[in-house]
Amino acid sequence: MNSAVVSSEEINQLFHDLFPLCRSISGEGVRNTLTRLQKISKFSTHEIKSGTSVFDWTIPDEWRVREAYIETLDGKRIVSFSDNNLHLVGYSCPFQGELSFDELVDHLHTLPEQPDAIPYRTSYYKKDWGFCLSYQEYSQMDQSARYRVVIDAEHFSGSLTLGEIYLPGTSGEDYIIHSYCCHPSMGNDNLSGIVLWIYLLRYLSEKPRRHGYRFVIAPETIGALAYLHLKQNDLDAVKGGLILTTVAGPGPFSLKESFSANSLVDRAAKCVLGQVDPDFICRPFDVLGSDERQYSTPGFRIPMITIAQSQYYHYAEYHTSLDNLDCISTESLLASFNLYINVINVLEGNAILHSLSPFGEPMLGKRGIYPMLGGGLNTEGSNTSHDRLRTTLWVTFLADGKHTLLDVAEKTGVSFSEVEEIALLLEQKGLLKIKYPERGLR
Amino acid sequence: MNSAVVSSEEINQLFHDLFPLCRSISGEGVRNTLTRLQKISKFSTHEIKSGTSVFDWTIPDEWRVREAYIETLDGKRIVSFSDNNLHLVGYSCPFQGELSFDELVDHLHTLPEQPDAIPYRTSYYKKDWGFCLSYQEYSQMDQSARYRVVIDAEHFSGSLTLGEIYLPGTSGEDYIIHSYCCHPSMGNDNLSGIVLWIYLLRYLSEKPRRHGYRFVIAPETIGALAYLHLKQNDLDAVKGGLILTTVAGPGPFSLKESFSANSLVDRAAKCVLGQVDPDFICRPFDVLGSDERQYSTPGFRIPMITIAQSQYYHYAEYHTSLDNLDCISTESLLASFNLYINVINVLEGNAILHSLSPFGEPMLGKRGIYPMLGGGLNTEGSNTSHDRLRTTLWVTFLADGKHTLLDVAEKTGVSFSEVEEIALLLEQKGLLKIKYPERGLR
Amino acid sequence: MNSAVVSSEEINQLFHDLFPLCRSISGEGVRNTLTRLQKISKFSTHEIKSGTSVFDWTIPDEWRVREAYIETLDGKRIVSFSDNNLHLVGYSCPFQGELSFDELVDHLHTLPEQPDAIPYRTSYYKKDWGFCLSYQEYSQMDQSARYRVVIDAEHFSGSLTLGEIYLPGTSGEDYIIHSYCCHPSMGNDNLSGIVLWIYLLRYLSEKPRRHGYRFVIAPETIGALAYLHLKQNDLDAVKGGLILTTVAGPGPFSLKESFSANSLVDRAAKCVLGQVDPDFICRPFDVLGSDERQYSTPGFRIPMITIAQSQYYHYAEYHTSLDNLDCISTESLLASFNLYINVINVLEGNAILHSLSPFGEPMLGKRGIYPMLGGGLNTEGSNTSHDRLRTTLWVTFLADGKHTLLDVAEKTGVSFSEVEEIALLLEQKGLLKIKYPERGLR
Repeated sequence: MNSAVVSSEEINQLFHDLFPLCRSISGEGVRNTLTRLQKISKFSTHEIKSGTSVFDWTIPDEWRVREAYIETLDGKRIVSFSDNNLHLVGYSCPFQGELSFDELVDHLHTLPEQPDAIPYRTSYYKKDWGFCLSYQEYSQMDQSARYRVVIDAEHFSGSLTLGEIYLPGTSGEDYIIHSYCCHPSMGNDNLSGIVLWIYLLRYLSEKPRRHGYRFVIAPETIGALAYLHLKQNDLDAVKGGLILTTVAGPGPFSLKESFSANSLVDRAAKCVLGQVDPDFICRPFDVLGSDERQYSTPGFRIPMITIAQSQYYHYAEYHTSLDNLDCISTESLLASFNLYINVINVLEGNAILHSLSPFGEPMLGKRGIYPMLGGGLNTEGSNTSHDRLRTTLWVTFLADGKHTLLDVAEKTGVSFSEVEEIALLLEQKGLLKIKYPERGLR
Repeated sequence: MNSAVVSSEEINQLFHDLFPLCRSISGEGVRNTLTRLQKISKFSTHEIKSGTSVFDWTIPDEWRVREAYIETLDGKRIVSFSDNNLHLVGYSCPFQGELSFDELVDHLHTLPEQPDAIPYRTSYYKKDWGFCLSYQEYSQMDQSARYRVVIDAEHFSGSLTLGEIYLPGTSGEDYIIHSYCCHPSMGNDNLSGIVLWIYLLRYLSEKPRRHGYRFVIAPETIGALAYLHLKQNDLDAVKGGLILTTVAGPGPFSLKESFSANSLVDRAAKCVLGQVDPDFICRPFDVLGSDERQYSTPGFRIPMITIAQSQYYHYAEYHTSLDNLDCISTESLLASFNLYINVINVLEGNAILHSLSPFGEPMLGKRGIYPMLGGGLNTEGSNTSHDRLRTTLWVTFLADGKHTLLDVAEKTGVSFSEVEEIALLLEQKGLLKIKYPERGLR
Repeated sequence: MNSAVVSSEEINQLFHDLFPLCRSISGEGVRNTLTRLQKISKFSTHEIKSGTSVFDWTIPDEWRVREAYIETLDGKRIVSFSDNNLHLVGYSCPFQGELSFDELVDHLHTLPEQPDAIPYRTSYYKKDWGFCLSYQEYSQMDQSARYRVVIDAEHFSGSLTLGEIYLPGTSGEDYIIHSYCCHPSMGNDNLSGIVLWIYLLRYLSEKPRRHGYRFVIAPETIGALAYLHLKQNDLDAVKGGLILTTVAGPGPFSLKESFSANSLVDRAAKCVLGQVDPDFICRPFDVLGSDERQYSTPGFRIPMITIAQSQYYHYAEYHTSLDNLDCISTESLLASFNLYINVINVLEGNAILHSLSPFGEPMLGKRGIYPMLGGGLNTEGSNTSHDRLRTTLWVTFLADGKHTLLDVAEKTGVSFSEVEEIALLLEQKGLLKIKYPERGLR
């Protein structure tokens, strides 16, 4: 268990510090979030000016909100941005005016099936404004009244902020660890991803590494595009990556496969998740989703997986005010942290097995690694020692210079860490060599 | 819907004109059938002389029947060819004589399990004669009586008639559209195939085509062999084909796969049939069947599929007098016509997708093809617009110069025509190029 | 049926002659067993000196037991080697002494779940001694008493004995037929394998052969290693092999696949077993098992299968005194003999089909091998003739120079022998050529 390297207390503190910030596609919310994260582990930030072209897209103007509310003509506030930043449709244009309910209603968003929940809505690419409120609040509005609407906001030429750092390795293989930081006050989507991202960064930056890791944190879609644009000539070594999102909900672990379904990251994730639950939820790649959409496009084709707990789209509180701090837990985030580290350990430890004693089985007995009394159902030892013998023999059997430790784990259903431990023992006994190919695994 | 190009009335007229003709392996029945079809759309006929070698076979003599009957000695007709041409075993030798019931019985064919039905039997490759009658008629025969048998028929050196036309295309790919025309008065097998054949020919001959189409109509087996013999040096561009048989019965659509099961014609058929019914009947290739037997032999290996409604072997009236005009319908034939046209549209429209904006997703929003308000379960639009967005993204995702429109339809389960419409829109928006490879798809 | 070539009586005689011998990893028991077998069919024996290196292993000392027992101090024998050679842990060190029950108990082995059974145990690679007895006998021992233990045995520098013969063929393909001969008085494991081995050897040595066969009989593990060491430069032509073990039990046939699961021996076995029972037991390759462990190692990678009746690990009497002559039967052994011969017939008869009439179907009718009256559900003949026609057409269809007779049997589900019979008929009719590729099938 690696949870020792990050404590519940510091996770909890970070949850509370970051939750209230009004993140959006750009602006101070994102900047303040990244600044707070940099206190935990260092990374670089880039400011990309509004109007800059990134592939088929353009960096948008920044958005700043001072206040936004609807009130009755006698000054009673119906909804106010200062109460909950979800009340204002993200990226709303400025507006001031007095409107009848009928005029206002097209700008109001509610969820009749979840009457207590404020929905989360944005209007990034169409100039518009709007308010989100619970259906309950909405139902109490006087439909014959007139309302004063104030959105004291502005769009201005500023910049989009993204954070990134490259932790170099020695293997010739790089992996991307990506989270998005544009969602305002919601817990599982995606405060949880942001928090997991920074602790994984701290963990990996302090540890010897075989592979290189590209940590990226940026607003969804346009931020991922901006990163790909910035680093497009540096990605040849990238073999895959992970999108960190919705990782601290109450639900079970699930995997969203990459487009290739059988890439190294997919296989590593399946190997680890299979130990947690052989019937773990496995969702095939789809073009809808998160930033894997950008990494997966024909020009890049980087296989990106998503390991979630209560994955986006698949939990009731998704994209509403009910996805708050009660919806996530530090325990759940720690479980994700440990699981991600296990996945990374598979990527780090996987290598090709070369037998040094390929003609007949090696004699394990004289090296003290074979049960000594024959004739019982294979061995007279406990089931544990029997299973361990079987795994040991599979390692020697597959050590033909073509198979990897991960192949053994997949073939036997045994955890990668146990396979690795056995392979290291056999290497120490002179029976095989674990080799990391010079240019990385395919 | 393409049913506009052929009317129920003309189909019905053709059914009634062609049903009574006594078709056989050669002779006037076939010739009169083809002459009637040439009034609808032109094609060539070839007369191949009796005795001509076609591969391992020899073109048989022609067969002509003037009359054939069994009567009691006092002149009561039991069965007569003039009542129903199924009464006479196809290709029977001439015979005249007076026989006891016991002598006659070996020449009588009945179906005890279907007592009302006259079976359909032939004796092409063994010199013999016989009569077919319902078990009911048979049961009423006086077994102690003697009977006068007259088969005023002859075999003579004539020719086998086959019809064919090549509609050229531009793609370098040819497809065969084949029906057999040797069955006498039965509806689904194979008057229906003959009628579908001529209307598909008229339709395709009047339409711009990418591919070439080889239309062939000929007696079963020997006719297909004769065609292959005639054109054996012209078939290099043929990528596959369709056998038109039993296409107007009351049953659901079914597919008999080609030997490769995954050839372009198989895939096109599955794509179209999957839209009609995701659980459509799919039968694997078998060496028993119809003329795909000849096209599939090692020397040709042309993948041929069969899309039927009430496929031969699999409906109760098969090869009996019950397979009459009541067994088929113009509606059913029109449904086949439309379905075949959809299959041809897939073959015609399929091409490779090349993205012109492969780095990151193209920005659909600025081109007016993306839902504008974000945050809802992918989109706030209707399910329709959500599904359409998803299909659009799949088209852009797979537009890597390796995948085709058919790949997208298969991946998404969306109809080929919708995928094609979206691809054409994206091409028009400058986001991709639809390319037909110079030598055709594999 | 080949059972004519071996009689129940001679099998039964051999069972009774060989059962009592105390076989072990080396020594007189093995030598006497092989001498008895040489009376049935000749083969060579090799003596490999103790201390010789074979790959990672060393040939152990020989073991000789004169007597071994436990008795009470007043001379009452509790267990004695002379009653049943399973009573003494195989390869036990010499020992003489007087022990309390508590001192003795660590050297006693019982099976509480099978209170009547003496377990079979060995201690080949750890210097130790012990006795095996039924739990019932054990329960009656006075736990407060003292016991006299005598093991009058010795380990000495001798040799390991292995038997082998190479029956040459002409095809360029060799197959291994291997059994192990180190188990003392037990029936199914592995007296049955030894007996099957010698009768297969006699059968194949008297018969014309296409392939070469390497017959090997040796103590398990170390004997297989010794053989591989001896012949390591002669195995290039070996395509696979069979491990003969547990072949005369009461259970159904089962297959343990080779590591490749789809090698020629696997396919031959599946083809034959599928005719016995379409749902025959098929166990995937595992690193635990018998001598396939050695043949399968990376340096050799010879696919070895096991066809058993009541396979080791999977029957209650396994490795106990209950696996005695009552546990096996001559009928069961004869069934195995016939089945193995069928598998060998597949290996011998399999070859590539080349059509001599590849353009269109050959005309079977003029050669008298096609039902003559058309129109019925394919034929009017019996189901038998219909099935035979279908198989015949499959043979001609697959005769493209790429497929073998085994491919046809697999595709049709028809027995290999029927496919072979049809192919030979078609070859005789000049329609195809059966070719054995010069260097053997892959």
